[in-house]
Amino acid sequence: MANKQPLILITNDDGITAPGILHLIAIAKTISNQIYVVAPDKPQSGMGHAITINAMLRIQPFQMDGVTAFSCTGTPVDCVKLAISKVVPRTPDLILSGVNHGSNSSINVIYSGTMSAAVEGAIEGVPSIGFSLCDHSIDAYFAPTGPYIKQIIEFALKNKMEKHTCWNVNFPSISSELIKGIRICRQARAVWEEEFQERQDPSGKPYYWLTGKFVNHEPDREDTDEWALSQGYISLVPVQYDVTAYHVIDQIKGLENEK
Amino acid sequence: MANKQPLILITNDDGITAPGILHLIAIAKTISNQIYVVAPDKPQSGMGHAITINAMLRIQPFQMDGVTAFSCTGTPVDCVKLAISKVVPRTPDLILSGVNHGSNSSINVIYSGTMSAAVEGAIEGVPSIGFSLCDHSIDAYFAPTGPYIKQIIEFALKNKMEKHTCWNVNFPSISSELIKGIRICRQARAVWEEEFQERQDPSGKPYYWLTGKFVNHEPDREDTDEWALSQGYISLVPVQYDVTAYHVIDQIKGLENEK
Repeated sequence: MANKQPLILITNDDGITAPGILHLIAIAKTISNQIYVVAPDKPQSGMGHAITINAMLRIQPFQMDGVTAFSCTGTPVDCVKLAISKVVPRTPDLILSGVNHGSNSSINVIYSGTMSAAVEGAIEGVPSIGFSLCDHSIDAYFAPTGPYIKQIIEFALKNKMEKHTCWNVNFPSISSELIKGIRICRQARAVWEEEFQERQDPSGKPYYWLTGKFVNHEPDREDTDEWALSQGYISLVPVQYDVTAYHVIDQIKGLENEK
Repeated sequence: MANKQPLILITNDDGITAPGILHLIAIAKTISNQIYVVAPDKPQSGMGHAITINAMLRIQPFQMDGVTAFSCTGTPVDCVKLAISKVVPRTPDLILSGVNHGSNSSINVIYSGTMSAAVEGAIEGVPSIGFSLCDHSIDAYFAPTGPYIKQIIEFALKNKMEKHTCWNVNFPSISSELIKGIRICRQARAVWEEEFQERQDPSGKPYYWLTGKFVNHEPDREDTDEWALSQGYISLVPVQYDVTAYHVIDQIKGLENEK
Protein backbone atom coordinates (compact mmCIF):
# COMPACT_ATOMS: atom_id res chain seq x y z
CA MET A 1 0.00 0.00 0.00
CA ALA A 2 2.68 2.46 1.06
CA ASN A 3 4.34 2.58 -2.34
CA LYS A 4 1.08 3.71 -3.95
CA GLN A 5 1.25 6.92 -2.00
CA PRO A 6 2.94 9.88 -3.67
CA LEU A 7 6.44 10.70 -2.51
CA ILE A 8 6.44 14.39 -1.57
CA LEU A 9 9.59 16.41 -0.86
CA ILE A 10 9.12 19.62 1.12
CA THR A 11 11.46 22.58 1.51
CA ASN A 12 11.27 26.35 2.06
CA ASP A 13 13.46 29.41 2.45
CA ASP A 14 12.46 30.63 5.91
CA GLY A 15 14.15 27.65 7.57
CA ILE A 16 13.00 24.30 8.90
CA THR A 17 11.52 25.74 12.10
CA ALA A 18 9.32 28.36 10.38
CA PRO A 19 5.56 28.09 11.07
CA GLY A 20 4.88 28.19 7.32
CA ILE A 21 6.69 24.93 6.55
CA LEU A 22 5.13 23.18 9.56
CA HIS A 23 1.71 24.18 8.19
CA LEU A 24 2.60 22.80 4.75
CA ILE A 25 3.94 19.53 6.23
CA ALA A 26 0.73 19.06 8.25
CA ILE A 27 -1.36 19.40 5.07
CA ALA A 28 0.91 17.10 3.07
CA LYS A 29 0.60 14.42 5.78
CA THR A 30 -3.16 14.28 5.16
CA ILE A 31 -2.40 13.36 1.53
CA SER A 32 0.53 10.92 1.80
CA ASN A 33 2.61 9.04 4.35
CA GLN A 34 5.69 9.37 2.11
CA ILE A 35 6.80 12.84 3.20
CA TYR A 36 10.46 13.94 3.17
CA VAL A 37 11.62 17.32 4.41
CA VAL A 38 15.01 18.85 3.59
CA ALA A 39 15.00 22.53 4.49
CA PRO A 40 17.55 25.22 5.38
CA ASP A 41 18.85 25.33 8.95
CA LYS A 42 18.55 29.14 8.92
CA PRO A 43 16.57 31.83 7.07
CA GLN A 44 17.44 31.99 3.36
CA SER A 45 14.98 34.59 2.12
CA GLY A 46 16.05 36.47 -0.98
CA MET A 47 18.59 33.81 -1.93
CA GLY A 48 17.13 33.49 -5.42
CA HIS A 49 18.59 30.59 -7.37
CA ALA A 50 21.85 30.59 -5.41
CA ILE A 51 23.79 27.33 -5.11
CA THR A 52 26.79 26.53 -2.93
CA ILE A 53 29.88 26.00 -5.06
CA ASN A 54 32.77 27.12 -2.88
CA ALA A 55 31.77 25.50 0.41
CA MET A 56 30.67 22.07 1.59
CA LEU A 57 27.16 21.18 2.65
CA ARG A 58 25.93 19.25 5.65
CA ILE A 59 22.57 17.76 6.50
CA GLN A 60 21.42 16.86 10.00
CA PRO A 61 18.44 14.68 11.02
CA PHE A 62 15.64 16.83 12.41
CA GLN A 63 13.00 15.45 14.76
CA MET A 64 9.54 15.75 13.24
CA ASP A 65 6.54 13.51 13.85
CA GLY A 66 5.71 11.09 11.06
CA VAL A 67 8.09 12.44 8.43
CA THR A 68 11.77 12.00 7.54
CA ALA A 69 13.32 15.42 8.01
CA PHE A 70 16.77 16.96 7.67
CA SER A 71 18.06 20.47 8.14
CA CYS A 72 20.62 21.55 5.57
CA THR A 73 23.36 24.17 5.71
CA GLY A 74 22.72 25.27 2.12
CA THR A 75 20.31 27.39 0.11
CA PRO A 76 16.79 26.27 -0.88
CA VAL A 77 18.12 25.12 -4.27
CA ASP A 78 20.91 23.18 -2.54
CA CYS A 79 18.22 21.50 -0.40
CA VAL A 80 16.36 20.27 -3.50
CA LYS A 81 19.54 19.06 -5.20
CA LEU A 82 20.90 17.30 -2.12
CA ALA A 83 17.53 15.79 -1.25
CA ILE A 84 17.05 14.32 -4.73
CA SER A 85 20.62 13.09 -4.89
CA LYS A 86 21.12 11.76 -1.35
CA VAL A 87 17.94 11.65 0.75
CA VAL A 88 14.80 10.45 -1.04
CA PRO A 89 14.59 6.75 -2.02
CA ARG A 90 13.27 7.59 -5.52
CA THR A 91 12.44 10.64 -7.64
CA PRO A 92 9.70 12.60 -5.84
CA ASP A 93 6.22 12.74 -7.33
CA LEU A 94 5.94 16.32 -6.15
CA ILE A 95 8.10 19.01 -4.57
CA LEU A 96 6.44 21.58 -2.34
CA SER A 97 8.14 24.77 -1.17
CA GLY A 98 6.87 27.13 1.53
CA VAL A 99 4.55 28.23 2.83
CA ASN A 100 6.62 31.39 2.57
CA HIS A 101 6.17 34.17 5.08
CA GLY A 102 5.71 36.99 2.53
CA SER A 103 4.67 37.53 -1.07
CA ASN A 104 6.43 35.92 -4.02
CA SER A 105 4.14 37.36 -6.67
CA SER A 106 5.23 39.30 -9.77
CA ILE A 107 8.94 40.24 -9.81
CA ASN A 108 9.50 38.62 -6.39
CA VAL A 109 9.60 35.24 -8.13
CA ILE A 110 13.11 36.18 -9.34
CA TYR A 111 14.50 36.96 -5.86
CA SER A 112 12.64 34.24 -3.98
CA GLY A 113 14.41 31.25 -2.46
CA THR A 114 11.01 29.57 -2.04
CA MET A 115 10.23 29.82 -5.74
CA SER A 116 13.80 29.01 -6.82
CA ALA A 117 13.46 25.68 -4.99
CA ALA A 118 10.33 24.99 -7.04
CA VAL A 119 12.04 26.12 -10.26
CA GLU A 120 14.94 23.77 -9.47
CA GLY A 121 12.40 20.94 -9.19
CA ALA A 122 11.04 21.92 -12.61
CA ILE A 123 14.55 21.97 -14.09
CA GLU A 124 15.07 18.44 -12.78
CA GLY A 125 11.74 17.34 -14.28
CA VAL A 126 9.83 17.02 -10.99
CA PRO A 127 6.37 18.64 -10.65
CA SER A 128 6.82 21.44 -8.11
CA ILE A 129 4.71 24.08 -6.37
CA GLY A 130 5.76 27.07 -4.29
CA PHE A 131 3.26 28.52 -1.80
CA SER A 132 3.47 31.98 -0.24
CA LEU A 133 1.28 34.03 2.07
CA CYS A 134 1.37 37.82 1.64
CA ASP A 135 2.34 38.42 5.28
CA HIS A 136 6.01 38.64 6.28
CA SER A 137 5.49 38.25 10.02
CA ILE A 138 6.64 35.16 11.89
CA ASP A 139 3.14 34.72 13.34
CA ALA A 140 1.34 35.11 10.00
CA TYR A 141 -2.08 33.41 10.08
CA PHE A 142 -1.84 30.41 7.73
CA ALA A 143 -5.10 28.64 8.58
CA PRO A 144 -7.20 30.09 5.71
CA THR A 145 -4.74 28.72 3.16
CA GLY A 146 -5.12 25.08 4.28
CA PRO A 147 -8.12 23.87 2.23
CA TYR A 148 -6.81 25.59 -0.93
CA ILE A 149 -3.31 24.18 -0.55
CA LYS A 150 -4.80 20.71 -0.22
CA GLN A 151 -7.02 21.27 -3.26
CA ILE A 152 -4.09 22.50 -5.37
CA ILE A 153 -1.82 19.59 -4.35
CA GLU A 154 -4.55 17.06 -5.14
CA PHE A 155 -5.22 18.72 -8.51
CA ALA A 156 -1.49 18.60 -9.32
CA LEU A 157 -1.24 14.92 -8.39
CA LYS A 158 -4.37 13.93 -10.34
CA ASN A 159 -3.79 16.02 -13.46
CA LYS A 160 -0.24 15.64 -14.71
CA MET A 161 1.62 18.94 -14.46
CA GLU A 162 3.33 20.15 -17.63
CA LYS A 163 6.90 18.88 -17.54
CA HIS A 164 9.62 21.44 -16.74
CA THR A 165 7.15 23.92 -15.28
CA CYS A 166 6.15 24.69 -11.70
CA TRP A 167 3.45 26.78 -10.03
CA ASN A 168 3.79 29.98 -8.05
CA VAL A 169 0.83 30.20 -5.64
CA ASN A 170 0.29 33.33 -3.53
CA PHE A 171 -2.39 33.84 -0.89
CA PRO A 172 -3.80 37.23 0.10
CA SER A 173 -3.49 37.80 3.83
CA ILE A 174 -7.23 37.91 4.53
CA SER A 175 -9.68 35.76 6.44
CA SER A 176 -11.23 32.63 4.91
CA GLU A 177 -14.63 34.14 4.16
CA LEU A 178 -13.05 36.96 2.15
CA ILE A 179 -11.03 34.69 -0.16
CA LYS A 180 -12.81 34.67 -3.53
CA GLY A 181 -11.11 31.57 -4.98
CA ILE A 182 -8.16 30.72 -7.23
CA ARG A 183 -7.15 32.66 -10.37
CA ILE A 184 -4.68 31.38 -12.98
CA CYS A 185 -2.54 34.44 -13.79
CA ARG A 186 0.55 35.77 -15.44
CA GLN A 187 3.42 37.50 -13.62
CA ALA A 188 2.72 41.23 -13.25
CA ARG A 189 5.34 43.72 -14.46
CA ALA A 190 6.65 45.35 -11.31
CA VAL A 191 9.87 46.53 -9.72
CA TRP A 192 11.33 47.24 -6.31
CA GLU A 193 12.57 50.83 -6.28
CA GLU A 194 15.57 50.80 -4.00
CA GLU A 195 15.86 53.10 -1.07
CA PHE A 196 19.01 51.99 0.77
CA GLN A 197 19.18 53.25 4.33
CA GLU A 198 22.63 54.61 5.11
CA ARG A 199 23.78 54.36 8.73
CA GLN A 200 27.07 54.81 10.54
CA ASP A 201 28.77 52.25 12.74
CA PRO A 202 30.23 53.31 16.12
CA SER A 203 33.52 54.20 14.41
CA GLY A 204 31.74 56.45 11.92
CA LYS A 205 32.00 54.18 8.87
CA PRO A 206 28.90 53.96 6.67
CA TYR A 207 26.88 50.82 6.03
CA TYR A 208 23.68 50.15 4.13
CA TRP A 209 20.39 48.31 4.59
CA LEU A 210 18.42 47.32 1.51
CA THR A 211 14.87 48.61 1.65
CA GLY A 212 12.59 49.47 -1.21
CA LYS A 213 9.20 50.45 -2.47
CA PHE A 214 7.20 47.97 -4.55
CA VAL A 215 5.87 49.52 -7.75
CA ASN A 216 3.34 47.63 -9.88
CA HIS A 217 3.59 48.89 -13.47
CA GLU A 218 0.20 47.50 -14.49
CA PRO A 219 -2.20 47.61 -11.52
CA ASP A 220 -5.30 47.49 -13.74
CA ARG A 221 -4.43 44.37 -15.75
CA GLU A 222 -6.87 41.69 -14.59
CA ASP A 223 -4.78 38.80 -15.91
CA THR A 224 -1.91 39.48 -13.47
CA ASP A 225 -1.13 37.94 -10.11
CA GLU A 226 -0.99 41.32 -8.39
CA TRP A 227 -4.49 42.22 -9.56
CA ALA A 228 -5.88 38.87 -8.41
CA LEU A 229 -4.32 39.26 -4.95
CA SER A 230 -5.58 42.85 -4.65
CA GLN A 231 -9.12 41.59 -5.32
CA GLY A 232 -9.02 38.80 -2.73
CA TYR A 233 -8.13 35.93 -5.06
CA ILE A 234 -5.39 33.34 -4.64
CA SER A 235 -3.00 33.78 -7.59
CA LEU A 236 -1.48 30.81 -9.39
CA VAL A 237 1.17 31.55 -12.04
CA PRO A 238 2.61 28.63 -14.01
CA VAL A 239 6.38 29.20 -14.27
CA GLN A 240 9.10 28.06 -16.69
CA TYR A 241 12.79 28.90 -16.90
CA ASP A 242 13.61 29.61 -20.54
CA VAL A 243 14.41 33.31 -20.21
CA THR A 244 15.20 33.88 -23.90
CA ALA A 245 13.67 37.16 -25.11
CA TYR A 246 12.41 35.62 -28.36
CA HIS A 247 10.90 38.90 -29.57
CA VAL A 248 14.36 40.48 -29.58
CA ILE A 249 16.23 37.86 -31.62
CA ASP A 250 15.30 39.28 -35.03
CA GLN A 251 15.91 42.88 -33.90
CA ILE A 252 19.60 42.25 -33.29
CA LYS A 253 20.46 39.87 -36.10
CA GLY A 254 22.63 42.70 -37.46
CA LEU A 255 25.21 41.79 -34.85
CA GLU A 256 25.91 38.49 -36.56
CA ASN A 257 29.01 38.94 -38.65
CA GLU A 258 30.23 35.67 -40.04
CA LYS A 259 33.81 35.69 -41.19
CA MET B 1 32.46 66.97 -23.54
CA ALA B 2 32.60 64.53 -20.65
CA ASN B 3 28.84 64.35 -20.21
CA LYS B 4 28.43 63.20 -23.80
CA GLN B 5 30.26 59.99 -22.97
CA PRO B 6 28.15 57.03 -21.89
CA LEU B 7 28.09 56.25 -18.19
CA ILE B 8 29.02 52.58 -17.86
CA LEU B 9 28.65 50.60 -14.64
CA ILE B 10 30.69 47.40 -14.39
CA THR B 11 30.32 44.45 -12.02
CA ASN B 12 30.91 40.69 -11.97
CA ASP B 13 30.57 37.66 -9.72
CA ASP B 14 34.17 36.46 -9.53
CA GLY B 15 35.15 39.46 -7.40
CA ILE B 16 36.77 42.82 -8.08
CA THR B 17 40.29 41.39 -8.39
CA ALA B 18 39.42 38.75 -11.02
CA PRO B 19 41.31 39.01 -14.34
CA GLY B 20 37.99 38.87 -16.22
CA ILE B 21 36.65 42.13 -14.82
CA LEU B 22 40.00 43.88 -15.31
CA HIS B 23 39.85 42.85 -18.98
CA LEU B 24 36.31 44.22 -19.29
CA ILE B 25 37.23 47.49 -17.58
CA ALA B 26 40.18 47.95 -19.93
CA ILE B 27 37.90 47.58 -22.94
CA ALA B 28 35.24 49.88 -21.49
CA LYS B 29 37.88 52.58 -20.92
CA THR B 30 38.53 52.69 -24.67
CA ILE B 31 34.85 53.58 -25.17
CA SER B 32 34.11 56.03 -22.35
CA ASN B 33 35.79 57.98 -19.56
CA GLN B 34 32.69 57.63 -17.40
CA ILE B 35 33.37 54.19 -15.95
CA TYR B 36 32.14 53.12 -12.50
CA VAL B 37 32.95 49.74 -10.96
CA VAL B 38 31.07 48.22 -8.01
CA ALA B 39 31.95 44.56 -7.69
CA PRO B 40 31.95 41.90 -4.96
CA ASP B 41 34.88 41.83 -2.55
CA LYS B 42 34.99 38.02 -2.80
CA PRO B 43 33.92 35.29 -5.25
CA GLN B 44 30.13 35.12 -5.65
CA SER B 45 29.81 32.48 -8.37
CA GLY B 46 26.54 30.57 -8.36
CA MET B 47 24.77 33.23 -6.30
CA GLY B 48 21.95 33.50 -8.85
CA HIS B 49 19.61 36.40 -8.15
CA ALA B 50 20.39 36.45 -4.42
CA ILE B 51 20.00 39.73 -2.54
CA THR B 52 21.05 40.56 1.01
CA ILE B 53 18.01 41.10 3.20
CA ASN B 54 19.10 40.02 6.66
CA ALA B 55 22.53 41.66 6.79
CA MET B 56 23.97 45.08 6.13
CA LEU B 57 26.15 45.97 3.16
CA ARG B 58 29.37 47.91 2.99
CA ILE B 59 31.28 49.41 0.09
CA GLN B 60 34.94 50.32 0.14
CA PRO B 61 36.88 52.48 -2.35
CA PHE B 62 39.15 50.32 -4.50
CA GLN B 63 42.22 51.72 -6.22
CA MET B 64 41.93 51.39 -9.99
CA ASP B 65 43.50 53.62 -12.64
CA GLY B 66 41.13 56.01 -14.36
CA VAL B 67 37.87 54.65 -13.00
CA THR B 68 35.82 55.12 -9.82
CA ALA B 69 35.75 51.69 -8.17
CA PHE B 70 34.30 50.17 -5.01
CA SER B 71 34.36 46.67 -3.61
CA CYS B 72 31.08 45.58 -2.03
CA THR B 73 30.32 42.98 0.62
CA GLY B 74 27.16 41.84 -1.16
CA THR B 75 26.08 39.69 -4.09
CA PRO B 76 26.31 40.78 -7.74
CA VAL B 77 22.66 41.90 -7.64
CA ASP B 78 23.35 43.88 -4.46
CA CYS B 79 26.24 45.56 -6.29
CA VAL B 80 23.93 46.74 -9.08
CA LYS B 81 21.26 47.96 -6.66
CA LEU B 82 23.70 49.76 -4.37
CA ALA B 83 25.64 51.26 -7.29
CA ILE B 84 22.51 52.68 -8.91
CA SER B 85 21.15 53.94 -5.60
CA LYS B 86 24.31 55.31 -3.96
CA VAL B 87 27.34 55.41 -6.28
CA VAL B 88 26.70 56.58 -9.82
CA PRO B 89 25.81 60.26 -10.39
CA ARG B 90 22.97 59.39 -12.79
CA THR B 91 21.26 56.31 -14.24
CA PRO B 92 23.88 54.35 -16.21
CA ASP B 93 23.62 54.18 -19.98
CA LEU B 94 24.88 50.60 -19.82
CA ILE B 95 25.67 47.94 -17.23
CA LEU B 96 28.35 45.38 -18.05
CA SER B 97 28.91 42.21 -16.01
CA GLY B 98 31.88 39.86 -16.27
CA VAL B 99 33.89 38.78 -18.03
CA ASN B 100 32.97 35.62 -16.13
CA HIS B 101 35.51 32.86 -15.71
CA GLY B 102 33.30 30.01 -16.96
CA SER B 103 30.23 29.42 -19.13
CA ASN B 104 26.86 31.03 -18.45
CA SER B 105 25.14 29.54 -21.48
CA SER B 106 21.86 27.57 -21.47
CA ILE B 107 20.61 26.67 -17.96
CA ASN B 108 23.64 28.32 -16.33
CA VAL B 109 21.93 31.68 -16.84
CA ILE B 110 19.64 30.75 -13.92
CA TYR B 111 22.46 30.02 -11.45
CA SER B 112 24.82 32.75 -12.62
CA GLY B 113 25.64 35.75 -10.47
CA THR B 114 27.16 37.42 -13.54
CA MET B 115 23.93 37.15 -15.51
CA SER B 116 21.72 37.96 -12.52
CA ALA B 117 23.52 41.30 -12.25
CA ALA B 118 22.64 41.95 -15.91
CA VAL B 119 19.04 40.81 -15.34
CA GLU B 120 18.80 43.18 -12.38
CA GLY B 121 19.90 45.97 -14.70
CA ALA B 122 17.12 44.97 -17.11
CA ILE B 123 14.56 44.93 -14.29
CA GLU B 124 15.59 48.46 -13.39
CA GLY B 125 15.29 49.54 -17.04
CA VAL B 126 19.02 49.87 -17.76
CA PRO B 127 20.51 48.24 -20.89
CA SER B 128 22.77 45.46 -19.59
CA ILE B 129 25.14 42.84 -20.98
CA GLY B 130 26.75 39.85 -19.27
CA PHE B 131 29.95 38.43 -20.78
CA SER B 132 31.38 34.99 -20.03
CA LEU B 133 34.30 32.95 -21.31
CA CYS B 134 33.90 29.16 -21.32
CA ASP B 135 37.00 28.60 -19.20
CA HIS B 136 36.73 28.41 -15.40
CA SER B 137 40.43 28.85 -14.68
CA ILE B 138 41.78 31.95 -12.98
CA ASP B 139 44.31 32.37 -15.80
CA ALA B 140 41.76 31.96 -18.60
CA TYR B 141 42.96 33.63 -21.82
CA PHE B 142 40.64 36.60 -22.41
CA ALA B 143 42.51 38.37 -25.22
CA PRO B 144 40.53 36.85 -28.15
CA THR B 145 37.28 38.22 -26.68
CA GLY B 146 38.44 41.86 -26.71
CA PRO B 147 37.49 43.04 -30.22
CA TYR B 148 34.10 41.29 -30.01
CA ILE B 149 33.28 42.74 -26.60
CA LYS B 150 34.06 46.20 -27.94
CA GLN B 151 31.94 45.59 -31.04
CA ILE B 152 28.98 44.36 -28.96
CA ILE B 153 29.16 47.29 -26.51
CA GLU B 154 29.31 49.79 -29.38
CA PHE B 155 26.36 48.10 -31.12
CA ALA B 156 24.36 48.24 -27.87
CA LEU B 157 25.13 51.93 -27.37
CA LYS B 158 24.32 52.86 -30.98
CA ASN B 159 21.19 50.74 -31.44
CA LYS B 160 18.85 51.16 -28.49
CA MET B 161 18.51 47.86 -26.64
CA GLU B 162 14.94 46.63 -26.07
CA LYS B 163 13.84 47.93 -22.67
CA HIS B 164 13.71 45.38 -19.83
CA THR B 165 15.92 42.90 -21.64
CA CYS B 166 19.64 42.16 -21.38
CA TRP B 167 22.12 40.09 -23.36
CA ASN B 168 23.90 36.90 -22.34
CA VAL B 169 27.15 36.70 -24.33
CA ASN B 170 29.34 33.57 -24.10
CA PHE B 171 32.72 33.08 -25.75
CA PRO B 172 34.14 29.70 -26.72
CA SER B 173 37.56 29.17 -25.18
CA ILE B 174 39.47 29.05 -28.47
CA SER B 175 42.06 31.20 -30.17
CA SER B 176 41.11 34.29 -32.19
CA GLU B 177 41.56 32.74 -35.61
CA LEU B 178 39.16 29.92 -34.78
CA ILE B 179 36.28 32.18 -33.65
CA LYS B 180 33.70 32.16 -36.45
CA GLY B 181 31.75 35.25 -35.36
CA ILE B 182 28.64 36.10 -33.34
CA ARG B 183 25.36 34.14 -33.42
CA ILE B 184 22.07 35.41 -31.95
CA CYS B 185 20.62 32.34 -30.17
CA ARG B 186 18.05 31.01 -27.78
CA GLN B 187 18.84 29.33 -24.46
CA ALA B 188 19.42 25.59 -24.97
CA ARG B 189 17.45 23.12 -22.86
CA ALA B 190 19.98 21.53 -20.57
CA VAL B 191 20.42 20.38 -16.99
CA TRP B 192 23.16 19.71 -14.45
CA GLU B 193 22.80 16.14 -13.24
CA GLU B 194 23.96 16.21 -9.64
CA GLU B 195 26.65 13.95 -8.39
CA PHE B 196 27.33 15.08 -4.81
CA GLN B 197 30.64 13.86 -3.45
CA GLU B 198 30.22 12.52 0.07
CA ARG B 199 33.24 12.82 2.37
CA GLN B 200 33.86 12.41 6.08
CA ASP B 201 35.36 15.01 8.39
CA PRO B 202 38.06 13.97 10.91
CA SER B 203 35.37 13.09 13.45
CA GLY B 204 33.60 10.81 10.96
CA LYS B 205 30.64 13.06 10.16
CA PRO B 206 29.60 13.24 6.50
CA TYR B 207 29.66 16.35 4.36
CA TYR B 208 28.93 16.98 0.70
CA TRP B 209 30.43 18.80 -2.27
CA LEU B 210 28.19 19.75 -5.17
CA THR B 211 29.51 18.43 -8.45
CA GLY B 212 27.58 17.56 -11.56
CA LYS B 213 27.50 16.53 -15.16
CA PHE B 214 26.20 18.98 -17.77
CA VAL B 215 23.63 17.38 -20.07
CA ASN B 216 22.45 19.24 -23.19
CA HIS B 217 18.99 17.94 -24.13
CA GLU B 218 19.15 19.30 -27.68
CA PRO B 219 22.74 19.18 -28.95
CA ASP B 220 21.66 19.27 -32.62
CA ARG B 221 19.48 22.38 -32.50
CA GLU B 222 21.34 25.03 -34.45
CA ASP B 223 19.39 27.94 -32.94
CA THR B 224 20.74 27.30 -29.42
CA ASP B 225 23.65 28.90 -27.59
CA GLU B 226 25.25 25.52 -26.82
CA TRP B 227 25.31 24.60 -30.51
CA ALA B 228 26.84 27.95 -31.47
CA LEU B 229 29.58 27.60 -28.86
CA SER B 230 30.30 24.01 -29.91
CA GLN B 231 30.85 25.23 -33.49
CA GLY B 232 33.23 28.05 -32.55
CA TYR B 233 30.71 30.91 -32.53
CA ILE B 234 30.19 33.51 -29.83
CA SER B 235 26.62 33.05 -28.56
CA LEU B 236 24.40 36.03 -27.75
CA VAL B 237 21.03 35.28 -26.12
CA PRO B 238 18.66 38.19 -25.45
CA VAL B 239 17.17 37.63 -21.98
CA GLN B 240 13.98 38.77 -20.22
CA TYR B 241 12.56 37.96 -16.80
CA ASP B 242 8.86 37.22 -17.23
CA VAL B 243 8.93 33.52 -16.34
CA THR B 244 5.20 32.93 -16.80
CA ALA B 245 4.58 29.62 -18.62
CA TYR B 246 1.93 31.12 -20.91
CA HIS B 247 1.31 27.82 -22.70
CA VAL B 248 0.16 26.26 -19.41
CA ILE B 249 -2.40 28.88 -18.36
CA ASP B 250 -5.30 27.41 -20.35
CA GLN B 251 -4.41 23.82 -19.36
CA ILE B 252 -5.06 24.49 -15.68
CA LYS B 253 -8.02 26.86 -15.82
CA GLY B 254 -10.00 24.02 -14.20
CA LEU B 255 -8.40 24.98 -10.91
CA GLU B 256 -10.28 28.26 -10.85
CA ASN B 257 -13.27 27.81 -8.63
CA GLU B 258 -15.00 31.07 -7.94
CA LYS B 259 -17.29 31.06 -4.97
